[in-house]
Amino acid sequence: MHRTAVLTLCRRVFLQTLRHLCEEVPRKLRVSEALSGVGLGKNVQIQGWVRSVRSQKANLFVDVNDGSCLQPLQVVSTSENQDPQLTFGSAVQIRGVLKKSLHRKQSVELEAGNIYVVGECNPLDFPFKIKERHKLDYIRQFPHLRSRTNTFSSLLRIRSEAAWAVHSYFKENGFVHIHTPIITSNDCEGAGELFQIEPSCPQNEDDNFFSVPAYLTVSGQLHLEVMAGSFSRVYTFGPTFRAENSQSRRHLAEFFMVEAEVAFTRSIEDLTTVMEAMFRRTTEHVLDRCPQDVDLFHKHVTPGHRDAVEAMLKAKFHVVTYSEAINILKQSAQTFAFPVNWGCDLQTEHEKYLVKHCGMRPVFVIDYPYQLKPFYARDNRDQPQRTVAAVDLLVPGVGELCGGSLREERLDLLKARLEEVGLEDTYSWYLDLRRFGSVPHGGFGMGFERYLQCILGVDNIKDVIPFPRYAHSCLL
Amino acid sequence: MHRTAVLTLCRRVFLQTLRHLCEEVPRKLRVSEALSGVGLGKNVQIQGWVRSVRSQKANLFVDVNDGSCLQPLQVVSTSENQDPQLTFGSAVQIRGVLKKSLHRKQSVELEAGNIYVVGECNPLDFPFKIKERHKLDYIRQFPHLRSRTNTFSSLLRIRSEAAWAVHSYFKENGFVHIHTPIITSNDCEGAGELFQIEPSCPQNEDDNFFSVPAYLTVSGQLHLEVMAGSFSRVYTFGPTFRAENSQSRRHLAEFFMVEAEVAFTRSIEDLTTVMEAMFRRTTEHVLDRCPQDVDLFHKHVTPGHRDAVEAMLKAKFHVVTYSEAINILKQSAQTFAFPVNWGCDLQTEHEKYLVKHCGMRPVFVIDYPYQLKPFYARDNRDQPQRTVAAVDLLVPGVGELCGGSLREERLDLLKARLEEVGLEDTYSWYLDLRRFGSVPHGGFGMGFERYLQCILGVDNIKDVIPFPRYAHSCLL
Repeated sequence: MHRTAVLTLCRRVFLQTLRHLCEEVPRKLRVSEALSGVGLGKNVQIQGWVRSVRSQKANLFVDVNDGSCLQPLQVVSTSENQDPQLTFGSAVQIRGVLKKSLHRKQSVELEAGNIYVVGECNPLDFPFKIKERHKLDYIRQFPHLRSRTNTFSSLLRIRSEAAWAVHSYFKENGFVHIHTPIITSNDCEGAGELFQIEPSCPQNEDDNFFSVPAYLTVSGQLHLEVMAGSFSRVYTFGPTFRAENSQSRRHLAEFFMVEAEVAFTRSIEDLTTVMEAMFRRTTEHVLDRCPQDVDLFHKHVTPGHRDAVEAMLKAKFHVVTYSEAINILKQSAQTFAFPVNWGCDLQTEHEKYLVKHCGMRPVFVIDYPYQLKPFYARDNRDQPQRTVAAVDLLVPGVGELCGGSLREERLDLLKARLEEVGLEDTYSWYLDLRRFGSVPHGGFGMGFERYLQCILGVDNIKDVIPFPRYAHSCLL
Repeated sequence: MHRTAVLTLCRRVFLQTLRHLCEEVPRKLRVSEALSGVGLGKNVQIQGWVRSVRSQKANLFVDVNDGSCLQPLQVVSTSENQDPQLTFGSAVQIRGVLKKSLHRKQSVELEAGNIYVVGECNPLDFPFKIKERHKLDYIRQFPHLRSRTNTFSSLLRIRSEAAWAVHSYFKENGFVHIHTPIITSNDCEGAGELFQIEPSCPQNEDDNFFSVPAYLTVSGQLHLEVMAGSFSRVYTFGPTFRAENSQSRRHLAEFFMVEAEVAFTRSIEDLTTVMEAMFRRTTEHVLDRCPQDVDLFHKHVTPGHRDAVEAMLKAKFHVVTYSEAINILKQSAQTFAFPVNWGCDLQTEHEKYLVKHCGMRPVFVIDYPYQLKPFYARDNRDQPQRTVAAVDLLVPGVGELCGGSLREERLDLLKARLEEVGLEDTYSWYLDLRRFGSVPHGGFGMGFERYLQCILGVDNIKDVIPFPRYAHSCLL
């Protein structure tokens, strides 16, 4: 045999083997990758869950989703591949060739040979039904399965992206991320609605495990203040707890808070600037990166809410003092369940009225009465009505989204206030922060679930957290 | 007056006013910005804490740090600005002009007019002394001040950057971030060392707040498994808890875990690939982004550790089966405190030996005895010694860093196992996950503090967490 012929033959065998190998091990793609055009014209493998199945003449159409995005990938096969196990909710593994689709609704489809059912799903037992948009309160009954619905999976993708945006905002602005503790011997707010913890099988009944009573944190603020005295800008993002015996649509026993603390702040405006920037940056990021998931809410779950969000972003956030707010409420024609007087706490009804009065945009209320706020709020030393440099951010639909204050950095004033409330011994370490290189500083906290409610228009806080915990409910 | 002369005068007045205004409000810079050359030649304002003060002839040199980086900014002023309040630890605000420095140690210095002491710091009372590198166990006694030391502030900047790197790794690889709950009615590991929670002021002594006993989570795994069944790839990063009555250098009552769960895994290698990639990506990121902070540890706190880290990154991670590991240990000349038999749990001494035996690199131990692992580990159904598809990652110096497994996705096998341990009712929701579109899946957890110990060489776990909680200690 001629040498060239041998080489040609070798080359052909090599290429054929290579092609065969490539075909044997098709590239695994996620649905989001396939839909964005990766692997077009190639042999690929898709894995996920069936969203719909329909037969049409000789063809079988199966929509498959793997959670990487809302939109499913349409798989086209022949009716021969019809299989009684191929039902809504079943798990499948499919090999085929990605082709351009002629349909309006998708740009890509998978032309599949066979469809392998990895895990069955009996449609009679499965609580969710094909092509049905179940109500949020129905979905909520199945905490272990509800992420299988489009609505809740979109919610959790948005939540994940919003959390990323929060971290990004702080990182870009030079904040150090501090993991503040969950277990603490402090009661930061003095609110009293605390969870106490103990080993479930204590070795010695008389003994505290930690030698002191220990609680679940209600705020990372005091721990962040420690850190602001070294890093100037710090934040934390984690769970906080209230033992509130409430079944309301606004409260949870366990909820997530974003908290920040900034040293060298001179005025409440130094704080409101950060609060507004974080809100805008996070919201713009979410709208930009999760268009389909957000649309599902703004078009189908909470129709019309998109306009409200865009109005919020367009408007400059408004600022009123507490005293101005009280005057606005007093002059209102509305009758409130809770009477309005200088010195009273603002109730949800008051907050909603104020937001409406200011044109349905976010409103900062600043300079609250001295008596209303905890010991750490900075005294404005004003007359005739004494106030502290505290701020709440009220937003349409939700009411209070953030709360913050400048902190009392002056040792003598803080000491006097702690003595007033009988806490000077408990907080001697906190006074130390004012003894050694004290600086003017302040911070705030934002309820992360309330933030999600605000941008998506979701009414019940239980629908924006993966596993809600509240009085008489701790499922899973 | 001539028109041109008037115009010239106006222009001069305008420019002078502008210059004056610019001088009046100098740009606020962080130390890290100033050191990187931002604002060179300009009037700026720096705020921070004094790291050192020294007089030399007519000059006063003050090093100022604001926590944005390890290196302080050198401020040069005249001896006239010497002030008894200008001590180590005091807080200052300084305006001046940023100039190129002729010194070897810094490229930039601040030529300052006056130095304003914002907050004093009495050097006699302050527990840290100027220019002294205090030992970690001394620093640890002052949880509210220890971030003021170079060592601990470097640690926390590294921790923040490592947390960011972990989030980045998962985001880049299509994982959805899930906030798994802290309060749970499960006991995932069945380990028994749980904290139980109750309101500190229960309204009704006989009543559980949640109607069921509620605990602090020991792992987010089961909740992640719920989510892996919708998103294919999910992770969580948060605190977990053990009521272990231990004062050891390796244990905390509250520690942070990175946990991931991946659907459509076929083999333990699908998991070890993710574990290794995350370890490498995070470590490379930290070494790259925190060179000064890491150097402080690798040169001064744990000298020589840099070589160990680089060796870890250079080596391919090793894989041995549990059975191979037992043989290695049996054949060793070393006598162990805990006897070695097939079926025994690996102790720290065994882990350390294995890592050394494999060349001081990370070692995956796979395929553990069926009886050693919890109910959810996937049965390998092998003979003669029955094993499950579980994996631990052992690393030099630390021992067990990660633990993971494929999960039993086969309904019949899982049901039988749960019946064996009497938990089929408690985990009926978990069995549901296998009833509706079950897929092969697996996951792992990594102790975040142990990770930091591993890359920095820090011996005591209490030195790598902002506020350590352990038996008999819950400070602040």
